[in-house]
Amino acid sequence: MSKVWKNYQEKNKDRFLNEMLDLLRIPSVSAKSEHKADMLKCAEAVKESLLASGADKAEVMETDGHPAVYGEKIVDPSFPTVLVYGHYDVQPAEPLDLWTNPPFEPTIIDGKIFARGSADDKGQFYMHVKALETLVKTNTMTTNIKFLIEGEEEVGSPNLGKFVAVHKDLLKADVILISDSSLLSMENPSLDIGVRGLSYIEVEVTGANRDLHSGTYGGAVANPITILSQMIASCHDKKNHITIPGFYDDVAIPTKEEKKLMRKAPYNEQEYKDELGVKELWGEKGFTTYERTGIRPTIEVNGIWGGYQGEGAKTVLPSKATAKISARLVPNQSSHKITEILLNYFTSIAPPSVTVKAFEHHGGEPYMTPIDSKGYQAASKALKTTFKKNPIPVRGGGSIPICSILERELGVKIIFMGFGLDNDNLHSPNEKYNIENYYKGIETIPYFHKFFAAP
Amino acid sequence: MSKVWKNYQEKNKDRFLNEMLDLLRIPSVSAKSEHKADMLKCAEAVKESLLASGADKAEVMETDGHPAVYGEKIVDPSFPTVLVYGHYDVQPAEPLDLWTNPPFEPTIIDGKIFARGSADDKGQFYMHVKALETLVKTNTMTTNIKFLIEGEEEVGSPNLGKFVAVHKDLLKADVILISDSSLLSMENPSLDIGVRGLSYIEVEVTGANRDLHSGTYGGAVANPITILSQMIASCHDKKNHITIPGFYDDVAIPTKEEKKLMRKAPYNEQEYKDELGVKELWGEKGFTTYERTGIRPTIEVNGIWGGYQGEGAKTVLPSKATAKISARLVPNQSSHKITEILLNYFTSIAPPSVTVKAFEHHGGEPYMTPIDSKGYQAASKALKTTFKKNPIPVRGGGSIPICSILERELGVKIIFMGFGLDNDNLHSPNEKYNIENYYKGIETIPYFHKFFAAP
Repeated sequence: MSKVWKNYQEKNKDRFLNEMLDLLRIPSVSAKSEHKADMLKCAEAVKESLLASGADKAEVMETDGHPAVYGEKIVDPSFPTVLVYGHYDVQPAEPLDLWTNPPFEPTIIDGKIFARGSADDKGQFYMHVKALETLVKTNTMTTNIKFLIEGEEEVGSPNLGKFVAVHKDLLKADVILISDSSLLSMENPSLDIGVRGLSYIEVEVTGANRDLHSGTYGGAVANPITILSQMIASCHDKKNHITIPGFYDDVAIPTKEEKKLMRKAPYNEQEYKDELGVKELWGEKGFTTYERTGIRPTIEVNGIWGGYQGEGAKTVLPSKATAKISARLVPNQSSHKITEILLNYFTSIAPPSVTVKAFEHHGGEPYMTPIDSKGYQAASKALKTTFKKNPIPVRGGGSIPICSILERELGVKIIFMGFGLDNDNLHSPNEKYNIENYYKGIETIPYFHKFFAAP
Repeated sequence: MSKVWKNYQEKNKDRFLNEMLDLLRIPSVSAKSEHKADMLKCAEAVKESLLASGADKAEVMETDGHPAVYGEKIVDPSFPTVLVYGHYDVQPAEPLDLWTNPPFEPTIIDGKIFARGSADDKGQFYMHVKALETLVKTNTMTTNIKFLIEGEEEVGSPNLGKFVAVHKDLLKADVILISDSSLLSMENPSLDIGVRGLSYIEVEVTGANRDLHSGTYGGAVANPITILSQMIASCHDKKNHITIPGFYDDVAIPTKEEKKLMRKAPYNEQEYKDELGVKELWGEKGFTTYERTGIRPTIEVNGIWGGYQGEGAKTVLPSKATAKISARLVPNQSSHKITEILLNYFTSIAPPSVTVKAFEHHGGEPYMTPIDSKGYQAASKALKTTFKKNPIPVRGGGSIPICSILERELGVKIIFMGFGLDNDNLHSPNEKYNIENYYKGIETIPYFHKFFAAP
């Protein structure tokens, strides 16, 4: 079959690329209410692309938030069914001034597609749409394929749990396949065997009831920036362990086997540092870099603001300071429990000279997939076929909040088969996706279906 | 004379107010380059108002930055000369959304003029313009009066030192009079016997060379917000003493006499807290509130920003975080020395996982004026006359960076005779100046000239 697929893909490669670029032109930023219309427009475009690519049916379906897109190609009820999950929403593009090209005008430079959402996740879920087209048009379907492309992944999928529960029958499948993660490199293909969970909160510290003159009141009234800084500083000790009581209570210690597997991933610290432009790495003492980003939970401040941020100087003692703070979680931490711990920590350590409001943005549970499952084995063989190398199982640092809910509701395992790279600038200015990776994904995915359907 | 002055002022009071409101309509924000034209417009308006109020001459004079306005009314070379210093520039009005009325459309509510610059310092220096008019039009001048109204006080008067040095002869005077501070209250008139100095710096912390995905890299790379927070937190110990080595080295310990004088200021902690809307005050242990804002140096974070600050959540590990940080200084601290100490502190404590850039915005020396001087005594008698109560000598918490330079260059003492109130919202949204205070200043100032000229 390989030749048939390759021929079809080769003949259509320019169109495959251009269709994806069209999707990137829609600024489907789920976090910002001003993009509500763009979200709907993008969902419609995804639906149309599914129908044009051979789906029997596709529709934009309402949720309590941004709509989700469902599509399917059912060939034979006796075939195994693969549910492809992806998301058409993207992260906010700010800070805009750091983009070399406008974030929603995809620009190709040196084989890289620069645009918000190129790797996360439009460019990746669209590989599955074009894999579907390949299988349909070459008449080589061996599985039934369903699609669930949602619009709220970047804001924590707050409404998808309910949607999945309501549409359990529609979404029924034998495995869930997600391309929303990275390879170690093109030379070292890998498969994520887990993703970290997430607890995301916002903390607002208020001192006086108004901004004050820092001369008249400085020294007499609490400065909310100083207090917030002290609260943030208190989260880590000198070894960068997290000090919040109870935070590590449920953290699973990986087995020796797992640690051994992790060490298989090639790692060159100098290259890693050079690529990031840092002299030294940072993190919890006693763990390697991949352990710190894979098997250990972390706390990051994602944003902070307060007082005067303009040109020049203003001698103000501000009334408020705010931070967005999130934790990445690992098995067996519970997002719900950690969110409670974080909210409680930041409100309880505040001195009486300020008031603190803290609330949850969103969360998601950590997730692990077994490497001895049929789905993992099919993915592993598929990558072996197209990369000519066995993929290394790795623990991904990111989060896909819906994973644990999908498994619970649908009762099947999730396979992570991502084709991005760590340097794709996800969530950052100048996000990119390599054209080579896009085509490699389209080439590889049909093999997953083939091996998954094999007896 | 009192009746003649009172009559003239009563007859012209509406015009006195309206002229000042016109000045408030000009957005003369010195910190922001977009207001360059407004600065010139405001300087011209000040010049015109001096000429219209009886000055023999007035002109807009170039400096290396925003222009300064000079004016004079020389009656008799044998009269003592009073130099009035003030500033026509104002602080930025941000955050704009917290203003009840537009900052540059003065709005009078309950006898209060709400506008940026109403108290700091347009409304206050303009009292001297109207006092000049009163003296000229009633033919009761007993001093020569000079005016130096500058346009860069709110950015630290970076160019005025040179200007004063060049124009020493023009500015020659026997005393310098400044209204740019506050009274304890209308019931408890006061005179500042000192202002704090200032060191204002900006600190930028950079981690990786770009914003990163907080999942992929969280735990491996330093988060500049976390590091900056740790650096800020390290500035104070648990008793809110400043921990930066050398910071307190030159701080003068006030005499028992001074401390006794300070305790004369009436102070009701509950009222103070209620007015600010805080449950508890904050500050250095072992010192009273007025000591903390008057005789003790402080460090405040005036602004902080980094990462995602928009709606919703973004899981970014930012590349940069920045803070504006200033110290208020007391005798005998040196602004230059403390600025060096601060810059050195923030660059030296940074861990090797980040790079830190720190630079100075501006500074100014602390200043004290002797209460046995002729100028202070004239001011004290003037307030006694119009308030029917002896003013209390207090230490002001704010800074007027040019004071030490004015004294050094012109060889005379500075008298602070401010008519604002601590709740005027200086440097904050909804800055206001009470009409009553404005008129009280215009009423009081002629007495200063009378008593200063008396043998």
